[in-house]
Amino acid sequence: MKICRRETFNAAHRLFRENWSDEKNLEIFGKCSNPNYHGHNYVLEVYVEGTIDPETGYVIDLKILKELIHEYVLDRFDHRNLNLDCAEFKNINPTTENISKVIWEILREKLDSKFGLEVVLSETDKNKVIFNGK
Amino acid sequence: MKICRRETFNAAHRLFRENWSDEKNLEIFGKCSNPNYHGHNYVLEVYVEGTIDPETGYVIDLKILKELIHEYVLDRFDHRNLNLDCAEFKNINPTTENISKVIWEILREKLDSKFGLEVVLSETDKNKVIFNGK
Amino acid sequence: MKICRRETFNAAHRLFRENWSDEKNLEIFGKCSNPNYHGHNYVLEVYVEGTIDPETGYVIDLKILKELIHEYVLDRFDHRNLNLDCAEFKNINPTTENISKVIWEILREKLDSKFGLEVVLSETDKNKVIFNGK
Amino acid sequence: MKICRRETFNAAHRLFRENWSDEKNLEIFGKCSNPNYHGHNYVLEVYVEGTIDPETGYVIDLKILKELIHEYVLDRFDHRNLNLDCAEFKNINPTTENISKVIWEILREKLDSKFGLEVVLSETDKNKVIFNGK
Amino acid sequence: MKICRRETFNAAHRLFRENWSDEKNLEIFGKCSNPNYHGHNYVLEVYVEGTIDPETGYVIDLKILKELIHEYVLDRFDHRNLNLDCAEFKNINPTTENISKVIWEILREKLDSKFGLEVVLSETDKNKVIFNGK
Amino acid sequence: MKICRRETFNAAHRLFRENWSDEKNLEIFGKCSNPNYHGHNYVLEVYVEGTIDPETGYVIDLKILKELIHEYVLDRFDHRNLNLDCAEFKNINPTTENISKVIWEILREKLDSKFGLEVVLSETDKNKVIFNGK
Repeated sequence: MKICRRETFNAAHRLFRENWSDEKNLEIFGKCSNPNYHGHNYVLEVYVEGTIDPETGYVIDLKILKELIHEYVLDRFDHRNLNLDCAEFKNINPTTENISKVIWEILREKLDSKFGLEVVLSETDKNKVIFNGK
Repeated sequence: MKICRRETFNAAHRLFRENWSDEKNLEIFGKCSNPNYHGHNYVLEVYVEGTIDPETGYVIDLKILKELIHEYVLDRFDHRNLNLDCAEFKNINPTTENISKVIWEILREKLDSKFGLEVVLSETDKNKVIFNGK
Repeated sequence: MKICRRETFNAAHRLFRENWSDEKNLEIFGKCSNPNYHGHNYVLEVYVEGTIDPETGYVIDLKILKELIHEYVLDRFDHRNLNLDCAEFKNINPTTENISKVIWEILREKLDSKFGLEVVLSETDKNKVIFNGK
Repeated sequence: MKICRRETFNAAHRLFRENWSDEKNLEIFGKCSNPNYHGHNYVLEVYVEGTIDPETGYVIDLKILKELIHEYVLDRFDHRNLNLDCAEFKNINPTTENISKVIWEILREKLDSKFGLEVVLSETDKNKVIFNGK
Repeated sequence: MKICRRETFNAAHRLFRENWSDEKNLEIFGKCSNPNYHGHNYVLEVYVEGTIDPETGYVIDLKILKELIHEYVLDRFDHRNLNLDCAEFKNINPTTENISKVIWEILREKLDSKFGLEVVLSETDKNKVIFNGK
Repeated sequence: MKICRRETFNAAHRLFRENWSDEKNLEIFGKCSNPNYHGHNYVLEVYVEGTIDPETGYVIDLKILKELIHEYVLDRFDHRNLNLDCAEFKNINPTTENISKVIWEILREKLDSKFGLEVVLSETDKNKVIFNGK
């Protein structure tokens, strides 16, 4: 059984590689390489897999899951510039793929190992990424 | 191949354990333990897995699946108080986890065993549960 | 110019008139008259009309509007039984119409009179009410 | 890791079998067998599974995936009558199941074999099909 | 006070003028002029304006409004080809504008004149029309 | 009669006043004043009011409206930093209120004066602004 909590955060970012020319960055990353950044309303869904606790009827208390997401993910990324404000993206491009991987790794470390974990991250209504650690 | 039918129902419920004090119920279940109940617009997605019937082009006729959901799930839970009106929740807490398990068990019994079955139940836009019987 | 803040609350309710027979209540209010209540995820949109403050660029600071809605509306109705827990509905039926009127009146009293006010309240994806005091 | 691109197309179709009587078509396919067709806003989600390219941070460049979907799926089906205009449905019924299978097969042939592929196709807000080739 | 009921219908249509050449039809109506039709999931919102009945707490009983919409609009247009099956569009183009005008006129005639009436019709997530008879 | 076209753009921005201290900016604009910017998926709805052209059945050809929005609004603001890249916000704060006012003024100048114009701009699912020039 999986239970899902949905949260959102709003951040600025830019896709580019320092060791590429501006032309190559524009060719590969298009408008996403705009030097002054752009931004998104990210929608994060965190799926936790486990069994129902017979006493509470919960797989995991969503208050606890919500606090985990707020403390370790939203407080770090919400209303930030992912490239400038977040050490996680100092050396890797803040693509939806990399952001979802970073979020999965953050939560995996904080979540009891008895639970399975999957992260779904939408950058826009047209794009999303699913990552479960594999 | 999986085919999904989406239906909704509106119900009242309350999370609590009779053998716990009011304080403990409030501590664990928060506002969800309000003695006079609160309620939700539940969104139910039923996924049926099978192969395409070459004659009709259907995995399952959605009219049949829809009727199954209406007769055995919606007529039982829609516009009800899950704690007071529904025998299924006499001894178990109507958490999203338990409701989705009960719905899965009801539909599993009615659905031809050649089909796979998965249930997704949303309590709010922020919470949902996925259950496939395992 | 109008600015809108969207919030949600989850509540139980029942539609009925004490001075009507059960049969008449069932005839007029259908399943909504279920004696043990049912419930909804209400979606509340609050529109405030005014002019842009040249200093901040705001019509109204949404933090202030949000706090107003939380303190005077959500804390009162969220995770409650509107019929049993809320004095506002002791003598009037908690239809979407009456709930939106009550919310409008609550907010109208708290909001600076220089602002226009309109309330949109959805009971389900299929039903909503718009009220601006007229 | 899976990445998803969402696109839409609008098409007319009709469900029926030529070798069945009108009565039988109506009995099995209901209003979907209307001889003059009806139509839908189809929502197509294409999931591509792979690993993150360490240079770009992409599983697949969404520009490339988008162009693939536009060139081989949308240009073929958008604003068409699936039964009359599309050879793919000359001999098979354009059910959501068959349309998603056809789209999967089209994209599977065009997509590098190193990638996994799954297609989700919604016909309405209430119906969708998931197909990954198995 | 306005109350809104949301319903949907699925129909095929084509935009063209008989007295224009195919080239002119294509130039003006683009892919919407495809001779074999295409189709949409139309979303219809019907707003009824009135005062709260103090006895029921309703502006209008939504069961009555729903039946009106089903009997006079959905039964006429759902799963139809607007150009071929619906006399209303024999001489006028089934644009979203004209469909919403026709629906408004149908409902205006059936709805008690004490109520105000507004119709919102979406053809896709990107296009909609609002009509109140003026 | 009003017809609406919905488009989206993704941009970075920051709310602050140069002549205020960092403390005052933080107090008034909260996390929105983050010096390195954050961002949003803006949803823009443009409502054009007019009468139906009896020849086409259109109030306005949506292709023309779409091109107008793309050429004069999206090409200017999409994937930009509103504060740094857009002269319009050199001296005014890019609040949702001010952005919608700027967009309305841009479109008003380009749109035939026979049409009415209203702009609805959402910054997140919880906040939006409506502006019609008054």
